[in-house]
Amino acid sequence: MKFSQLYTKTSKNISTQTESKNAQLLTRAGFIYQEMAGVYAYLPLGLRVIQKITNIVRDSMNTVSTESLLPALSPTERWQDTNRLETIDVLISTKGANELALAKNSAEYILNPTHEDIITPIAKHYRTSYKDFPFSTYQIQNKFRNEPRAKSGVLRGREFIMKDLYSFHVSEESLMEFYESIKDVYMDIYKKLGIGDDTFITFASGGDFTKSYSHEFQTLLSAGEDTIYLDRENNIAYNSEIATPEDGKRLGVEFNQLEKLKASEVGNIFPLGTKFSKALNYQFVDSKDKKDYVWMGSYGIGISRLMGVVTEKMADDKGLVWPESISPFRFHLVVLPDKASLEAADKLYEALGAESCLYDDREDISPGQKFSDAELIGCPVQLVVSQKTLAKNSVEVRSRTGLFEPRLIKVSELKHDTKF
Amino acid sequence: MKFSQLYTKTSKNISTQTESKNAQLLTRAGFIYQEMAGVYAYLPLGLRVIQKITNIVRDSMNTVSTESLLPALSPTERWQDTNRLETIDVLISTKGANELALAKNSAEYILNPTHEDIITPIAKHYRTSYKDFPFSTYQIQNKFRNEPRAKSGVLRGREFIMKDLYSFHVSEESLMEFYESIKDVYMDIYKKLGIGDDTFITFASGGDFTKSYSHEFQTLLSAGEDTIYLDRENNIAYNSEIATPEDGKRLGVEFNQLEKLKASEVGNIFPLGTKFSKALNYQFVDSKDKKDYVWMGSYGIGISRLMGVVTEKMADDKGLVWPESISPFRFHLVVLPDKASLEAADKLYEALGAESCLYDDREDISPGQKFSDAELIGCPVQLVVSQKTLAKNSVEVRSRTGLFEPRLIKVSELKHDTKF
Repeated sequence: MKFSQLYTKTSKNISTQTESKNAQLLTRAGFIYQEMAGVYAYLPLGLRVIQKITNIVRDSMNTVSTESLLPALSPTERWQDTNRLETIDVLISTKGANELALAKNSAEYILNPTHEDIITPIAKHYRTSYKDFPFSTYQIQNKFRNEPRAKSGVLRGREFIMKDLYSFHVSEESLMEFYESIKDVYMDIYKKLGIGDDTFITFASGGDFTKSYSHEFQTLLSAGEDTIYLDRENNIAYNSEIATPEDGKRLGVEFNQLEKLKASEVGNIFPLGTKFSKALNYQFVDSKDKKDYVWMGSYGIGISRLMGVVTEKMADDKGLVWPESISPFRFHLVVLPDKASLEAADKLYEALGAESCLYDDREDISPGQKFSDAELIGCPVQLVVSQKTLAKNSVEVRSRTGLFEPRLIKVSELKHDTKF
Repeated sequence: MKFSQLYTKTSKNISTQTESKNAQLLTRAGFIYQEMAGVYAYLPLGLRVIQKITNIVRDSMNTVSTESLLPALSPTERWQDTNRLETIDVLISTKGANELALAKNSAEYILNPTHEDIITPIAKHYRTSYKDFPFSTYQIQNKFRNEPRAKSGVLRGREFIMKDLYSFHVSEESLMEFYESIKDVYMDIYKKLGIGDDTFITFASGGDFTKSYSHEFQTLLSAGEDTIYLDRENNIAYNSEIATPEDGKRLGVEFNQLEKLKASEVGNIFPLGTKFSKALNYQFVDSKDKKDYVWMGSYGIGISRLMGVVTEKMADDKGLVWPESISPFRFHLVVLPDKASLEAADKLYEALGAESCLYDDREDISPGQKFSDAELIGCPVQLVVSQKTLAKNSVEVRSRTGLFEPRLIKVSELKHDTKF
């Protein structure tokens, strides 16, 4: 993509509106725009990161499940059977905005904060014989939660993009077999996103859902909201919320002998058991015509949150730093403003392609500003075309993170997938 | 995809909940599930159609613009300057759902029904010099409108998926040049969707936006909501809403000499002029440091609505009929229930790939039921594997619409992209 196709601009100013590091940097680099606290527009560079994370998550999910898309709105009644009109304090409900609309249609809807209450009636509509189980479906969609303090940028929004998977089983064994398999799928996703080495499966409270533990996936982050106890030897962690003597005994862990570290949650999985199937009366019929409650699990990954975690984890004092797999572009091409260099850069951009290269074709912008924008935007490989490099039929290749020394490479040898 | 990966089932029953042909058929075939009037879940088969339409629209939009993703929620204040809190009667506003949330945060938000009021302040933030123009951005996103009568299935929902493009210019000439170019882009999209021959650029009222005309794209449909006067010779149409003597004089058209036909709107484009830039005080600075209002255009295509229009237009008495470009799958593979046939079908499915082939691997379902489900689901090419076809090392190939006669083709010769 050419810089001139972006309508955004970078900014040196640190906004006073936002306190979080991720929102500061993503705003300065023109990736996001704050509409209101906890609600952001994804500008072209930011949307490309979101789409790349989405594609990685979708590809992995498709190996174990089938995609659907559930609605954002639901009737209020849908939330009565699970009593969640009272228990979810971030629930957002709607009304017609003005008297005219109210007169025509005064129905209240819920803006869904999660979708157990929505998918369960659909599953119940289609699948009731034991032969129909197990099955699952996932979606990638906006969630709405009226967070009272929405000051964490894209880490915790009032409107945010989430992947949520729901599974349905005839027994606890079947549920737990699927649940365990999802751990591997999730860890594979974090590996592809470039945070695999610092992400750990973490025991956490089962919360409302279950008397046993649920699991989170926690990525080490010095500014993280959570604290975990990390057992590196066994490659497992424990959220500090369960670091009680009682839990220690139950789990056979001595928390004070483990590393205590700050981390940020990048996913969670819940063995829901029969909580929702009982509330919503979802039963299956077994081979002997006997009815019993369906076992359920739910499995979440915050897509927009992941953009924030990667931002906070990777950024340095010059700006954003993107892993190649989710960088808006692999290459950031900077050209010096003479005619020969511009012509060569145009050709190079054509050869590399709009998908892999962000080409700073702006006029009236100094090379210095272009270089500092390349650092701020954070694509992994910077390309510099100048008379000096062209004298050797070459382009200078630089790593955003110093992974390799700056060097010249022949223009003819540089392809979109050249390894460095 | 294998049928067993779908959690949905087809149904012979016609729902009493819904009146529209598209919702009836899409529900029976397991493409959508009604959450409430005007709000649907897209089940795996339906979501595949939505994703294919989305990809076609996105690819075309990327040739003229750059993608963003704007939020669904906005602060109420955002809609005050344009006076649209009063003028949009389908506006949905939110409140915290319970007392606890209300106490913490009693802010009201708007669930955006359109995004002129959202994109204009963003554009104004980044672009004010005449050198910055023209520019544009588009998004593909949910819209929310509290339609009083939501009885048209996915044709007119309370929650629906839309592509909306916004353009910004320093002059009416620049706006109209872009506006005209979008007509070609849109017509190209309808061609790719398989409805190009029956879709016409149509003069329509400028509505609130402009004193001149806007343009709609109308697809001929006997059950369509609109009536158009079609001038086939000049390949242009007129919405009956502007078929007044006054408009006739202005446009130089004699409406009663044209074909009067039912049609359904599949897109619209508006020359907004300076309506929004004046309301939101968006000015640019010209080369002489003089300020003037920005010229804007907006351009919409309803993604989920298109699924409904294609459904109503193409379906026959056996069920859905999909153009190849947006069919959930190209092939629907039906196998007779003997061991040799099943083994051969497994291999054929592997060879064709999960992306191009829906493989009915259900046990305990009669061949008759499988054939009628294939008709109902409407993939363009049906494949039948049986002992009879295998005796000739072949598979039977059938067109859903009788485009070609059923015939045998050697298994070894059938590829995912074989032409028939």
